[in-house]
Amino acid sequence: MADMIRRRALLGGGAAAVGAGLVIPDVAASRDLGAGRSGYSDRSKYENAQRVFRPSATPGTGASRTPLQDLYGIITPSSLHYERHHSGVPSIDPAQYELLLHGLVTRPLRFSLDELRQFPSVSRIHFIECAGNAGREHRGEPAPTVQISHGLLSCSEWTGVLLSTLLQEAGLKDSAQWIVAEGADAARHTRSIPIHKALDDVIVAYGQNGEAIRPEQGYPLRLVVPGWEGNINVKWLRRLQVANQPAMSRDESSSYTDLLPDGRARRFTFEMQTNSVITRPSGGQHLQERGFHEITGLAWSGYGRITRVEVSVDGGGSWRDAELQTPVLSKALTRFRVPWRWVGEEAVLQSRATDETGYVQPTREVLVAARGMKEGPDGFNHYHGIKPWKVNRDGSVSHI
Amino acid sequence: MADMIRRRALLGGGAAAVGAGLVIPDVAASRDLGAGRSGYSDRSKYENAQRVFRPSATPGTGASRTPLQDLYGIITPSSLHYERHHSGVPSIDPAQYELLLHGLVTRPLRFSLDELRQFPSVSRIHFIECAGNAGREHRGEPAPTVQISHGLLSCSEWTGVLLSTLLQEAGLKDSAQWIVAEGADAARHTRSIPIHKALDDVIVAYGQNGEAIRPEQGYPLRLVVPGWEGNINVKWLRRLQVANQPAMSRDESSSYTDLLPDGRARRFTFEMQTNSVITRPSGGQHLQERGFHEITGLAWSGYGRITRVEVSVDGGGSWRDAELQTPVLSKALTRFRVPWRWVGEEAVLQSRATDETGYVQPTREVLVAARGMKEGPDGFNHYHGIKPWKVNRDGSVSHI
Repeated sequence: MADMIRRRALLGGGAAAVGAGLVIPDVAASRDLGAGRSGYSDRSKYENAQRVFRPSATPGTGASRTPLQDLYGIITPSSLHYERHHSGVPSIDPAQYELLLHGLVTRPLRFSLDELRQFPSVSRIHFIECAGNAGREHRGEPAPTVQISHGLLSCSEWTGVLLSTLLQEAGLKDSAQWIVAEGADAARHTRSIPIHKALDDVIVAYGQNGEAIRPEQGYPLRLVVPGWEGNINVKWLRRLQVANQPAMSRDESSSYTDLLPDGRARRFTFEMQTNSVITRPSGGQHLQERGFHEITGLAWSGYGRITRVEVSVDGGGSWRDAELQTPVLSKALTRFRVPWRWVGEEAVLQSRATDETGYVQPTREVLVAARGMKEGPDGFNHYHGIKPWKVNRDGSVSHI
Repeated sequence: MADMIRRRALLGGGAAAVGAGLVIPDVAASRDLGAGRSGYSDRSKYENAQRVFRPSATPGTGASRTPLQDLYGIITPSSLHYERHHSGVPSIDPAQYELLLHGLVTRPLRFSLDELRQFPSVSRIHFIECAGNAGREHRGEPAPTVQISHGLLSCSEWTGVLLSTLLQEAGLKDSAQWIVAEGADAARHTRSIPIHKALDDVIVAYGQNGEAIRPEQGYPLRLVVPGWEGNINVKWLRRLQVANQPAMSRDESSSYTDLLPDGRARRFTFEMQTNSVITRPSGGQHLQERGFHEITGLAWSGYGRITRVEVSVDGGGSWRDAELQTPVLSKALTRFRVPWRWVGEEAVLQSRATDETGYVQPTREVLVAARGMKEGPDGFNHYHGIKPWKVNRDGSVSHI
């Protein structure tokens, strides 16, 4: 590794004597005592990573995207978790809050937040990704930055009660086949979840990264459905109805389906497929100089653990295994890293993920051949093709 | 498990028909669209968990404590990470920032933040704990809440360059035995680290929980020394000097030593020992009703992984294994949980951790016998005795 690392000689190289001539950096403006202690603090005034979003003609509707190019590790700061709202961010007083569980159960139940916190809890790190993430890549409209192309993707440590615990408490009737989850946003966002998933790993979550879930992520309660499209992770959860069929709500019938070339649609494409993207260097960034650079990015799969990420720097001619940050968690973002020496030539960087089912992330061409090329905003949900970035001779990085 | 869970019947128990009489909770005040999207968001206005601190006669000096009783999982929100400042929180412009690495090296080096980010990076979840955490427990002055007793303890996903990478880059001379790390705070906080640790798992960290390190945690650069006392995790890191002996700085000689009964002091007690504490129910909380409650808390060890946490609800008469949240990480907080049915009687709750070295957390009595009972603010660093909480008949929880 050592010979791949750029050497920055402080005093002209070689074994320099450290003496009176050595200048110790004066990084603090003075010996000022600065700020004191605080109850709940903010980031440095010098930091400005932001979610980005376009103005929306319909107030309260739209998305904002996580600045993946600025982030480290696998935890997304809650203040930067991507947003996708259909009807704004309701302001909910937790003291007035109740969750209703009813339908095909022996005992319909109602829970306050304090009551939910008395139940056995779990904390698990999972990604949430909008089904529409990177959809424009499919259409051949590559975004200039990874925030625009893949920023509908975030990862948190979620805490709450397993939905299976609450269903056991209520007592499922034999006819129970689906759970219909309803949010408290103005549009009452509603999605249906098959019973096998509901009894598996779904969390009725009140915690995110150690504290209460953030308002735009569903405060005070969100259904976290690990590995499944973001839309089904119902925010501001107020009602769970056990049913014998799906609701076929607006949010799962008029949209969030995958239209196929023959005009039929895939109803309920739940899992987010094996995917990866390089976040650094990525579009809009600039390599300041030749020599060593770390290539790093994120991989994820709605089916379980990532087992391998390969990186190519020559447009797919050759591939090299990246190092995966441990522990590698199921249905969580996985950070990968590979060392690279940039010699000043043009380079095309790509990553390719494999998950524990053996599925290998395909190219865009493979996905287009399988799904066709259609118009419309919802034509390309669940896009997960390999994403190339081009490093130019001047060090700038752009999309292809 | 089912019979341990309090059953809350919505409509009077039994299998109730869900019909016109069912009231769906109206948790949002209205069908108002609420707030829209934002660039960098804050928590709900209804949430008020705070670090607590006492006024200090010396501005910029003191500690603030993490509200462990309010937190979930293992990640501490960066806004609530405990603070311990000797000289305030300097405001550092990252564009002006440089780290100097010099002393017994072949090539003294100077790094900007951009240069550090080009190096191979790691992200790891580690706790940081002040050596003085829970010190008053030793003295027989138990705190009324877990925030006051154990709140100098937090856990983050840290990202940065391994110190070993930078030392390899600089080239260590044969005489190199210690690394002296200096902060850019007004007092130039300084600590010495033996070379074997420096070459092991120490991180020169610029990232905390996905974004830049927070100002009060050392923005823009902190030395993260996994498992070792908080004081040695030097914040606002500006200089690393390779030396053949420790600096014997004020911060490692006049304090942060463990004074023994015979008047001698343990110099350099680096590792934080195997420890645990119940955070819920804990002092100041109140059980609202009899029946099922989850007992949960945190365990940690500066020596590696936690392998076992036992919980007693009868003052130590009997112990039961708690479930450990997975993955259990080395030198990280480990969340434990155990179900409990409170029948309305007095109960004394305690937890006892074991780590992978086989060390079992001792009682206070054992620690007092080993170390004696001395006066002075620094007499009881590295306290890690079993902490009891008393549940009273009225449901209130208090210290013993």
